[in-house]
Amino acid sequence: MSILIKNALLDNKKKDIYIEGSRVSEIGSNISAEAEYRIDGSGMAAIPGLINGHAHAAMSLLRGYADDMALDEWLRNRIWPLEAKLTEKDVYWGSRLSCLEMIKTGTTCFNDMYWHFHGTARAALDSGLRAVISSVFLDTFDEKKAKEQIRESISLLKESKGYGSRITFAMGPHAIYTVSANSLQWIKEFADKNRLLIHLHLSETEKEVEDCMKMHKKRPVEYLDDLGFLGKNLVAGHAVWLNQKETFLLKKNNVKLIHNPSSNMKLCTGRVFPYSGLKKAGLTIGLGTDSSASNNSLDMFEEMKTAALLQKFSTDNPVIMPAKEALSMATLGSAMALGIDAGEIAENKLADILLIDLKNIQMLPRHNLISNLVYSANGSCVDTTICDGKLLMQGRKVDDEEKVIEGFMEHAEKLTG
Amino acid sequence: MSILIKNALLDNKKKDIYIEGSRVSEIGSNISAEAEYRIDGSGMAAIPGLINGHAHAAMSLLRGYADDMALDEWLRNRIWPLEAKLTEKDVYWGSRLSCLEMIKTGTTCFNDMYWHFHGTARAALDSGLRAVISSVFLDTFDEKKAKEQIRESISLLKESKGYGSRITFAMGPHAIYTVSANSLQWIKEFADKNRLLIHLHLSETEKEVEDCMKMHKKRPVEYLDDLGFLGKNLVAGHAVWLNQKETFLLKKNNVKLIHNPSSNMKLCTGRVFPYSGLKKAGLTIGLGTDSSASNNSLDMFEEMKTAALLQKFSTDNPVIMPAKEALSMATLGSAMALGIDAGEIAENKLADILLIDLKNIQMLPRHNLISNLVYSANGSCVDTTICDGKLLMQGRKVDDEEKVIEGFMEHAEKLTG
Repeated sequence: MSILIKNALLDNKKKDIYIEGSRVSEIGSNISAEAEYRIDGSGMAAIPGLINGHAHAAMSLLRGYADDMALDEWLRNRIWPLEAKLTEKDVYWGSRLSCLEMIKTGTTCFNDMYWHFHGTARAALDSGLRAVISSVFLDTFDEKKAKEQIRESISLLKESKGYGSRITFAMGPHAIYTVSANSLQWIKEFADKNRLLIHLHLSETEKEVEDCMKMHKKRPVEYLDDLGFLGKNLVAGHAVWLNQKETFLLKKNNVKLIHNPSSNMKLCTGRVFPYSGLKKAGLTIGLGTDSSASNNSLDMFEEMKTAALLQKFSTDNPVIMPAKEALSMATLGSAMALGIDAGEIAENKLADILLIDLKNIQMLPRHNLISNLVYSANGSCVDTTICDGKLLMQGRKVDDEEKVIEGFMEHAEKLTG
Repeated sequence: MSILIKNALLDNKKKDIYIEGSRVSEIGSNISAEAEYRIDGSGMAAIPGLINGHAHAAMSLLRGYADDMALDEWLRNRIWPLEAKLTEKDVYWGSRLSCLEMIKTGTTCFNDMYWHFHGTARAALDSGLRAVISSVFLDTFDEKKAKEQIRESISLLKESKGYGSRITFAMGPHAIYTVSANSLQWIKEFADKNRLLIHLHLSETEKEVEDCMKMHKKRPVEYLDDLGFLGKNLVAGHAVWLNQKETFLLKKNNVKLIHNPSSNMKLCTGRVFPYSGLKKAGLTIGLGTDSSASNNSLDMFEEMKTAALLQKFSTDNPVIMPAKEALSMATLGSAMALGIDAGEIAENKLADILLIDLKNIQMLPRHNLISNLVYSANGSCVDTTICDGKLLMQGRKVDDEEKVIEGFMEHAEKLTG
């Protein structure tokens, strides 16, 4: 497929963008190449597709099912019992709805952790999105379970090859309080050997740190460092309870972090992501929504605003995380965290591109495009979503929207009915 | 005009809502009355129009013009110099765009403070919204200015009668640090005598409290109490820097408060609105967005979420301000603060009503409508906006949208050009 976008605003200049296959082949003025799809980009801004660095797509099934509760109670009494009932088909349809929500709100790639890998992988494949998908590895310190999960991981890696280049399999150890040290070490070796990313919840709550101190006399990052677990292929979600030594260890090992401000606020993780220290240390930082059960939205535009506002408020510093840094976290930051060759619009980069309708009220006036994107817009300002060089949405229309909603509702209603 | 909404979801039941003139005349099943407009409400939820309790509508002109700055610098070096240039026509078109944004995001009434009263009043009138509008009273402790402002207030009150029942004139003393004690006392007497609301910025920053302590040896609320300024007609925006005694004085005098979480976070007012103490004291609390220069959105759905998340995070209590309380602040709370007979859908109440499209992805699944409204939805989920018994938006179409955008852009571009 080839797409020619004419006269879109790119970095404050009118440009044509020519896409061949899955990549941007040329950016310039007056490109006259023939293309299967020609898009009039006038009155539109072209920005990189947003990348959701930490998500659990299937959990749209549980959106609104349990809110305004403490994290532990929420997980143990509401979320986990319902999750135990989920089938791969449920996961497929839950993930399809989330993919649809992501397409409609400008996300072109997501980093997922959930059960029933194939459910999520098929959903991402069918929807046209790019995804890094891990199956949850959770052994609750039970050797038998660990063996099962190891076997499953080996199979999944093989099976995942069938999904093509848009879907990447990753290892997904849930957290240090649900996965044994032995399993973590196996995961690390397996991931390194097979060049896989590792997606982990890290230092989300004070309890996680306290329990780790009690059990191992070390803080979580120190514990992982001693296990040899830290490395450039580790993508850690949350990461709010960190001290200076841990920041140093994360940087030394080039660990990637994903900030999840809405979820942290809603579930009261008790501390704000230490952005300025982590940035100063030079860490790669992406942005994510966490799940629709803990956020409850996958709109990365809203997440950028929440991130910037939360930093300003909690540090009493209105100049921290300016709009361009929030946007950068949601694009290049997440891309670098996931090792995806996207997050910016440039020749030879993956063609994961949004067109933003500048006639939308929330984009007016035009004093500062990036301010408008971060502080005023939400996902409804996206007109066109292109992923991997394919048109997934144009004029806010997605081909199979009704079919996806129908399939989703059938499975969501059954769950609690 | 009469409108019959058939089969909309109202408080979890399918209902018909019959509107005659500006009020709801009947709610029931199988209402068969003849109506000029008949709306199929199936697949829609009917909720009260949201009420923005503290806004500066014209400031859409400055959206994105100055972000990521300290409040004092932001006001003195960026906002005030540009505001000095604004004409009544600018204010009209700035307010028209904001009214359009409000209609499209489900706000049916707003409480405004800005210069050029007639600009905002005409904009609200022409757009079809309900509004309480004050002209800014700001004398910078200069007697000559005070006299001018007093004269202007007396004229405006008379002139405002021409706008009809949807537009209410209020007094708008900017803040205790910009208005003299004499003027505040005149305003209070004038407002009491003429049954006007008083709209004030109160205890927004620590500096305001410190300066007041230095100058008057009292905290702001004590200072206002000693002036005899507190009363049931006072609507105070922000109100974050309050101690227990001030809370007691506010309650004793039945002062109404408006919470502005996004603006407080973005401008780093340094403290969170003390919601649980104020609620416990029994104060009436509404919700507002503040201006498009400090938020930068007028989407009250996003504001509800931000309010709930900020409370949870800052008090480390995930059960504080559950979704239904956030929704209540944005509807009945603001309505009670402004003395508007709306904020709920009931017979004989003003017909300020939204229809929410339940097929919207953000409203799925349907475990909990209120959770979805507060934590997942944004203004783009509103299908129909009715204010004062008139249809302002249906199927997301507003009659004069293009004309308003054109007029607005002309004036916004001129300002900084």
